[in-house]
Amino acid sequence: MKVLVVHAHPEPQSFSSALKNVAVDAFHEVGHEVEVSDLYAMGFNPVASTADFSRRANPDYCVYALEQRNGVATGTISADIQQELGKLMQCDLLVLNFPLFWFSTPAILKGWIDRVLVSGTAYGGTRFYDRGGLRGKRALVSVTLGGQKHMFGSDGIHGPLESMLKHLLQGTLAYTGLDVLSPFVAWHVPYVKHDDRVAMLKAWRQRIASLEDDAPLSFPSLNDFDQQLYPLKSGT
Amino acid sequence: MKVLVVHAHPEPQSFSSALKNVAVDAFHEVGHEVEVSDLYAMGFNPVASTADFSRRANPDYCVYALEQRNGVATGTISADIQQELGKLMQCDLLVLNFPLFWFSTPAILKGWIDRVLVSGTAYGGTRFYDRGGLRGKRALVSVTLGGQKHMFGSDGIHGPLESMLKHLLQGTLAYTGLDVLSPFVAWHVPYVKHDDRVAMLKAWRQRIASLEDDAPLSFPSLNDFDQQLYPLKSGT
Repeated sequence: MKVLVVHAHPEPQSFSSALKNVAVDAFHEVGHEVEVSDLYAMGFNPVASTADFSRRANPDYCVYALEQRNGVATGTISADIQQELGKLMQCDLLVLNFPLFWFSTPAILKGWIDRVLVSGTAYGGTRFYDRGGLRGKRALVSVTLGGQKHMFGSDGIHGPLESMLKHLLQGTLAYTGLDVLSPFVAWHVPYVKHDDRVAMLKAWRQRIASLEDDAPLSFPSLNDFDQQLYPLKSGT
Repeated sequence: MKVLVVHAHPEPQSFSSALKNVAVDAFHEVGHEVEVSDLYAMGFNPVASTADFSRRANPDYCVYALEQRNGVATGTISADIQQELGKLMQCDLLVLNFPLFWFSTPAILKGWIDRVLVSGTAYGGTRFYDRGGLRGKRALVSVTLGGQKHMFGSDGIHGPLESMLKHLLQGTLAYTGLDVLSPFVAWHVPYVKHDDRVAMLKAWRQRIASLEDDAPLSFPSLNDFDQQLYPLKSGT
């Protein structure tokens, strides 16, 4: 299996970075190939713009998704996007490893999503959710946060973490057809003791060793909707 | 009233940009002061990093939120953040105007959130939600998207748009104490006819003219939780 770990933390000594290092090691241990895109270390540019296309389909008006299609088709999309897209298409498992910034990804990782999940390849037209361009691959989010577990869940002040991450788990990863596994969550990271951190790293390593058995989360299926995306039966 | 419009679209001729222009005009018409941060035009840097702090509280290990506090307290946070933070603290209403990228903000706007909503000012400790640092101000999201209205809502394939935007509406804007108004949504923008676009611009102008009467959306209150953020009564 080939694994792509996309990692985004501004501090190389962070616990999030330790999770990244453990992941690489643990995937190697079970015999997988691992590629890492360490976005801060790469100085990755997160801004989707006209500068991403050396030859424009429409030089007068930029529809970013259409330019992505043209850029990939003609090989004129910027080299950094082409490189990341190559890694993505090669992988069997995509791991996004990051600290929760405002209940979402840091901007540098959001920009990787904006720029690399190109229209026409990752999705397009009615090729999304279970007909998405990345179906057959899996995705796993690994996130660190300051909050505690009891602050999430149906009685928690923030509600379930999965609902805060719906834009990412459903709207991004499942949207492209990826089988999305249950996120690995490291709670309360800045405040816990050394032993708790060691235990979380161990849990992460064990999770990786048993990933093959993981059942993906459930998301909408295009089979339940008509061609105009109206529901086929009420109550779905 | 002072209004800050933060706008993020890579194409200056886009419908999203037209919404921004209409907003400026309509707010002026009702006598408000308007400041615009056009992030693409400004070349805004969205990457939260150690480069944001000219003098570090801890030069050996970056906890971004702690460096934000130190940077604001000592005036050593980078000039672009200081400038945006000044605009934010001056405003009575924050408008975020953007095209939906992956059911969220474009990365350049996510980076404005990551960098400008500084710890210690916008939030901090138990100063969040209805005790957040920006309470007394209001927020309005204005978003363009390709999808149609029937694809959202409880029967829609994507579920309610507000649930896709929970990380932004609740986890970001309400988290800082802002009174969050119901988003203005321009549906199906790349596909609709000229007349529909004119009608949407008119609806936006009318919405702005009647904003004073808008009731904010409901979000969690710290009053319903104890000091450790456990719920005070079950079933909340």
